[in-house]
Amino acid sequence: MELSGKVVVAQGGGPTAVINQSLVGAVLESRKFPQITKVYGAVGGVRGIIDEQFMDLTQETTHNLERVAVTPSSALSSTRDKPDQKYCEEIFKVFRAHDVRYFFYIGGNDSSDTVRIVNEQAEKEGYEFRAIHIPKTIDNDLMINDHTPGYPSAAKFVAQSFMGVNLDNHALPGVHVVVVMGRHAGFLTAAASVARQNPEDGPPLVYLPERAFSIDSFVQDVKTMQDRYGRCLIAVSEGIQDQHGEPILSKLMHTERDAHGNVQLSGTGALGELLANEVKEKLGLSRVRSDTLGYLQRSFIGCVSDVDQREAREVGEKAAQFAIWHNVDGSIVIERTGNYDVNYRLVDLKKIAAKTRLMPDHFINKAGNNVTEEFVHYLRPLLGSEMPEAARLRAPMVPRIHTK
Amino acid sequence: MELSGKVVVAQGGGPTAVINQSLVGAVLESRKFPQITKVYGAVGGVRGIIDEQFMDLTQETTHNLERVAVTPSSALSSTRDKPDQKYCEEIFKVFRAHDVRYFFYIGGNDSSDTVRIVNEQAEKEGYEFRAIHIPKTIDNDLMINDHTPGYPSAAKFVAQSFMGVNLDNHALPGVHVVVVMGRHAGFLTAAASVARQNPEDGPPLVYLPERAFSIDSFVQDVKTMQDRYGRCLIAVSEGIQDQHGEPILSKLMHTERDAHGNVQLSGTGALGELLANEVKEKLGLSRVRSDTLGYLQRSFIGCVSDVDQREAREVGEKAAQFAIWHNVDGSIVIERTGNYDVNYRLVDLKKIAAKTRLMPDHFINKAGNNVTEEFVHYLRPLLGSEMPEAARLRAPMVPRIHTK
Repeated sequence: MELSGKVVVAQGGGPTAVINQSLVGAVLESRKFPQITKVYGAVGGVRGIIDEQFMDLTQETTHNLERVAVTPSSALSSTRDKPDQKYCEEIFKVFRAHDVRYFFYIGGNDSSDTVRIVNEQAEKEGYEFRAIHIPKTIDNDLMINDHTPGYPSAAKFVAQSFMGVNLDNHALPGVHVVVVMGRHAGFLTAAASVARQNPEDGPPLVYLPERAFSIDSFVQDVKTMQDRYGRCLIAVSEGIQDQHGEPILSKLMHTERDAHGNVQLSGTGALGELLANEVKEKLGLSRVRSDTLGYLQRSFIGCVSDVDQREAREVGEKAAQFAIWHNVDGSIVIERTGNYDVNYRLVDLKKIAAKTRLMPDHFINKAGNNVTEEFVHYLRPLLGSEMPEAARLRAPMVPRIHTK
Repeated sequence: MELSGKVVVAQGGGPTAVINQSLVGAVLESRKFPQITKVYGAVGGVRGIIDEQFMDLTQETTHNLERVAVTPSSALSSTRDKPDQKYCEEIFKVFRAHDVRYFFYIGGNDSSDTVRIVNEQAEKEGYEFRAIHIPKTIDNDLMINDHTPGYPSAAKFVAQSFMGVNLDNHALPGVHVVVVMGRHAGFLTAAASVARQNPEDGPPLVYLPERAFSIDSFVQDVKTMQDRYGRCLIAVSEGIQDQHGEPILSKLMHTERDAHGNVQLSGTGALGELLANEVKEKLGLSRVRSDTLGYLQRSFIGCVSDVDQREAREVGEKAAQFAIWHNVDGSIVIERTGNYDVNYRLVDLKKIAAKTRLMPDHFINKAGNNVTEEFVHYLRPLLGSEMPEAARLRAPMVPRIHTK
């Protein structure tokens, strides 16, 4: 009953801080099984399979694999290619030629769709083959999963960014708009609010793609907070849309689309600047700034959640175990048990592939301009054990004696 | 001979990751002297003095001060005000009313100029008074200093950002322009190159305000690197100028000026996007991205150099010692001794005030598009003991058997 042959592991889509943990988990676990003849890494995702760019990870040292595991970004390189029928046929020709019997693809919902197509093609061609999707996305938008590896570390980066920017905004008060990644799901933007220690800590306003965005309401919200605190820090998702579902950004500029038909939202500071200008002009405020967190959110070295690292490692390891011990296909999902621990399950690829999970309603406040305490309780354990804290001075003020 | 009275400490200009270390160093050391009746913190820089917004830091707990010391940004809040003669007269009225005899102002060259004006005013009015400027700036542009507190931590953030973005650019190859803070001095942008571990690691191109920037040469440089590596990561200072000294950014858009007459360069992604568009159009490349590091460079919590922390603490402590033990005025400077240790000296305020130190020639390569190894040797010890490392896979590639 044992299916003997080679393993191919690949990494798809955007990198994360812990995607190499999943790679190393799958590789080290696969190398333990005698029926596995070789463990290959496809260099450059599915494109690397088509091009036969395989690295023989059976010949990589365990020590170096452990160093790679704690290095962010995709060590095997990635691709934005989305395989169609023809692409998948090419993949099979290569897999057959190399006697590849196990395919582990680490990625988001686009990558899980790739795994589904590849697996269906395998069945259709009667090629005995196990394919498992290993979850990864900083967007946290995979169905069924409580959360996805990569999200907690990106969320930690966003939280630490906002903790710092909040202190900066306190020191030199003004309005500060900070734009966070997230095309459809607001989970990453929502992380901005998790590190608030005191009621006056920013951001008091958090705008998510899940709620229709209105410039007028936004400006009014900013005025309310500016009047209350004398300053206002704002978290905005790059994917905010109007009531018709049109991205606020794409209404305003010529935008690129990638091979999946997605509008390119990252890599431009335009959204933040547009919103800052609205505030400046409509409220007549002078000190209005914007920042766009950009690619640092998924690549910054030295800001990682230890919980995320451990889980990313385990989903890779479980992929090898499910496929090789149990001879099954599917997508690994993370299930939360208690507060806080997790279990890993395998679900049908159709339940994950090409679907997007959004922020549930109970994570968003009624006004649609902030998160709820429930969201904070959801996110906090994912950030792990090493969140920094900010301290403020608490000494008494001195009575005036010169001026009144 | 002992000058008895109150101490006022204030923080000016932009925050840094370690400016509170200097505050706490000055406060704790001042509190030890019996002739110091109180230690006040001016809330909001020199503006807080005029407004008599003093916090009595004699009544702050030592434990909380230690927590504030490791918190980034200015705990006392800051100001962009630049005192003129009239402003200084107001400061004196307040100082006299409160019997303030020692003034420690933590800031950059604008703040050191403030200390100089205030001190001259004190002499003119025959008011016995000690004023010391405590250096701080992420720009590293103070005269005489080997480096300035705040720069090493900001440089560490920039270095870690580029380490991560380099891995990201390796995983999904393309051209990536990353804009770094620095109005006149390129020290912070130069930090982008300090973490390169392998010859192919980016950025291969680093553009500094110290060298005239030409769009045509830039595009040609990018083409050379793209041809060589199949990708190109670029570090650009926000302050790059053409051969006539005109900022590249201000040529292209309406820009704000602050109270010091400085053009506002931060808080806009326009420069990076402009340069990315040039590359796209002139080289016909599709995957061209830009990022602007923004305010995170000076405020991000959780990325700090331990060397910077220790030195920022000591310059604050030394300010109190020089003024109270030795009854002298001036600016504290950091002097490097050996590889690596430092001494602290006091110099005349005129030598520091309102002057800007630029990158010396031997830190910039001949082509003016990168730093030298000398710069890397200069910066490396400042980053302290906890720099992350990146690892890459080194296993052999598998020969092709399906396609040729």
